[in-house]
Amino acid sequence: LQNLRIPGPTPCPPETLNELSRQMINHRGPEFAALQGRIMDRLKQFFRTQNEVYVLTASGTGAMETSVVNVLSPGDHVLAVSIGEFGDRFADIAEAFGAHVHKLGLEPGTAADPQAVADALRREPAIKAVLVTHNETSTGVTNDVAAIGKAIRAINPEVLFVVDAISSLGCIPFAQDAWGVDVATTCSQKGFMIPPGLAFISLSPRAWAAYETAKMPRYYFDLGSYRNYAKRGQPPFTPSVALYYGLDTALEIMDKEGFEQVNARHHDIAEYTRSRVKALGLKLLAIGNEASDTVTSIVVPEGVDAAQLLALLNSEYDTVLAAGQGKLMGKIVRIGHMGLVERKDIDGAVDGLASALVRLGYKNPAAVGGA
Amino acid sequence: LQNLRIPGPTPCPPETLNELSRQMINHRGPEFAALQGRIMDRLKQFFRTQNEVYVLTASGTGAMETSVVNVLSPGDHVLAVSIGEFGDRFADIAEAFGAHVHKLGLEPGTAADPQAVADALRREPAIKAVLVTHNETSTGVTNDVAAIGKAIRAINPEVLFVVDAISSLGCIPFAQDAWGVDVATTCSQKGFMIPPGLAFISLSPRAWAAYETAKMPRYYFDLGSYRNYAKRGQPPFTPSVALYYGLDTALEIMDKEGFEQVNARHHDIAEYTRSRVKALGLKLLAIGNEASDTVTSIVVPEGVDAAQLLALLNSEYDTVLAAGQGKLMGKIVRIGHMGLVERKDIDGAVDGLASALVRLGYKNPAAVGGA
Repeated sequence: LQNLRIPGPTPCPPETLNELSRQMINHRGPEFAALQGRIMDRLKQFFRTQNEVYVLTASGTGAMETSVVNVLSPGDHVLAVSIGEFGDRFADIAEAFGAHVHKLGLEPGTAADPQAVADALRREPAIKAVLVTHNETSTGVTNDVAAIGKAIRAINPEVLFVVDAISSLGCIPFAQDAWGVDVATTCSQKGFMIPPGLAFISLSPRAWAAYETAKMPRYYFDLGSYRNYAKRGQPPFTPSVALYYGLDTALEIMDKEGFEQVNARHHDIAEYTRSRVKALGLKLLAIGNEASDTVTSIVVPEGVDAAQLLALLNSEYDTVLAAGQGKLMGKIVRIGHMGLVERKDIDGAVDGLASALVRLGYKNPAAVGGA
Repeated sequence: LQNLRIPGPTPCPPETLNELSRQMINHRGPEFAALQGRIMDRLKQFFRTQNEVYVLTASGTGAMETSVVNVLSPGDHVLAVSIGEFGDRFADIAEAFGAHVHKLGLEPGTAADPQAVADALRREPAIKAVLVTHNETSTGVTNDVAAIGKAIRAINPEVLFVVDAISSLGCIPFAQDAWGVDVATTCSQKGFMIPPGLAFISLSPRAWAAYETAKMPRYYFDLGSYRNYAKRGQPPFTPSVALYYGLDTALEIMDKEGFEQVNARHHDIAEYTRSRVKALGLKLLAIGNEASDTVTSIVVPEGVDAAQLLALLNSEYDTVLAAGQGKLMGKIVRIGHMGLVERKDIDGAVDGLASALVRLGYKNPAAVGGA
C-alpha cells in the first residue's frame, strides 16, 4: 500500500471512500436538501462561525477566486500578503480580475509579521481588502491570522480580511468570527478526509455588505446565487453529489471527535514528524511557532538531488512526498500530515527517507557526532 | 430501488461507482499523468475532434463560463441563441463578463431556425461569437448544430461558434470538427455515467487564436493554464481525482460500445419513451426531429397539478421525474433517458406516470377513443 504523504489530496478512510459509491439522487429533491443542510450546519462548527458556509463544486483555487470576486471591484486596492506560492496565487487572482494589488512578499520559509502587515496597510489608506494565506502549503509555514487580524483592525476597522484557510481549516485552530475574518475558504482534500472537488466558503456580514457593491464579474462563483438557492436546500448548479456523500460522513466523524481534539491530533503528529526528521540531522525550512502542523518542509541536504530522492522514495519505498514549488523546487521536499495520518505512516516515510538519503550518499551528521 | 429519471445526474453503473472508492494518489505523479492521458485521448473520440479536450473540476455551468471567458473581451458583440433556460444562462454569463449580448430568444419548446440565426448575424456584422445550446435540457429540444454552423459560416466565416453540448455530447451525434464548432463543452453526469463534478472543454485553432487577445478576466477557468500543465500530464489545480477514476472506466465502456452505437441506443430509448407517453394520450412539448433523444418533456394535462404529480410519483412509485423550469414550471414534467437506461426503466416511469395521473383525475382520451 502506498504511503501518500503529500499535502493533499490526503488518504481517505474507508468510511468516507465507501460513501462515494452510492447511487445518484435528484439534487433538487428533499433527500439532497437534508444532506446539504447537515453539511452546512456542521461546516459552521469547523469554521467556528455564525455565518452560513456554502459548498462549491471546485477545487481550492476556485474558492480563492470566489473569495476575491464577490467582495471587490476592478480598481480596488488590495494588500496581498504572500509567504509563498499560494500567497502569490491570491495576488495573481486579484490582479487577473482587475484589482490594484500591493504585494507584501516575504522570503519563502518565514511567516508574515503582523506589525509589518499593519504598517503596509497604514501606508496605503486606499486598501479595501487584505489577502492572507493561513497556512502556506508550499513552504509549511503558518501565519498568525488572529494577530494579523488584530493588527489590521487597529489601522482600519472596516478593511476586508480575506483568508485562504485551505490547508489549515479542519486541521489546525481556526476561528472565523473570533478572529474577525470576513471571507474564509477551505476545501475537501485536506483535513476533511475526502477526495478533492469541493470547496467551502463563508462570508461575514461585512463581506456580504461589500458583495452588494462588488463589481468584479462572476457567474459560476457568484455567492448571491448560492445564498438564494440555499434557502430551498439546493446549490444553484449541479453539485458533485458523490463528494457530498463522503463529506457528510467525514463531518460526522470529525464532529464526534470534536474540533479541539482534531487540532490536538494534528499538532501531535506534526511535532512527532519534526522530531523524527531532525533526528536524521536534516534541517527544517520553518522555525518555531511558524512551522506548520499540517505540512513539514525538509531542506534537501547539499549534494543530494531532490528529484532523484523523490523518485527513489516512490519506486523503492512506496512513499510519496511532495516536491518544492517555485523558488523552492529542488531545494526542499515536503511531508503532509493532515487528515488520516498516524505515527506509523510518519515512521514509514521518515525511515524510507533516511534509507534513500544514505543510498544517495548522505551522511547523517547527528549520527556521527558532527555538525 | 429509486427510478431516477431526471436529465442529470443520471444513474451510474456499479462499474463506474465502484471506482470512486479507490484511494487517492498524487495528482502530480506518473500514475495520474497516465490516467489523465487516457481520459483526454478517449474524450477526443466523443467530441469527434483533433483538438485537445481539457477536464475541469466544475459542473456544466462552470464549463459554460469557461467557454465564454477564454475567447471574448468585455464589449464584444455576441449573438446568444436561446431556446430555453440554459440558452438564457449562456446569455447571462456573457453579459456578466461584459459582452454586448444580442439575444435571439425562441418560444420554449421549439428549436432555432438556422436561417433565422444567420439573418440575425447578418444584421449585426460586429458579432464575434454565436452561443448555441445543442440540446436544451429545460425543454427537451435539440438544435440542429450542424445546420446552424453551416448557415452562420456562410455569413461570417470567422465568427466563433460556441456550443453548450452538456446534455448531448456522449449521448446523441456530435462532431466538433465536422460541424465547425470552435468551443464545445459537456460534463460528467449525463451520458458519461458518472456523478457530477467534472466538465470537458475543447477549443478549435480559431478559438485558441481568439484566446490570445481575449481580455475577459479568468483564473480558475483560464484554459491557457490547462494547456500548459497538460504537457506534463497534469491539470493546473488539484483535480477531482475520484471522478477521474470513474470517468476512466466509463470511457473504456463507451469506447468498447463505440460512439455510433451509443448514439443509436439513445435514439432507440427516446423513440420508445415518446411512443409510450403518447399512448397515454399525453402531449409532448417538442415535435418531430426537434424532440431530444436525451430528455422528453411531457405537457401536464389540464386540471392536474404538476408538483402534486411529481410528489406522488416520488412517494408512491419510487420514480423521480424533473419539474419544468422557468416559464415552463408547472406546465411540463421531464423524463431523462441518457447514459444508463433501459426499456424497463422507462416502463416503470411511464406506468407510474399513468397510474399517478389517474389518481389525480386524469382520463386518457386515447384509451376511450377521444382526443
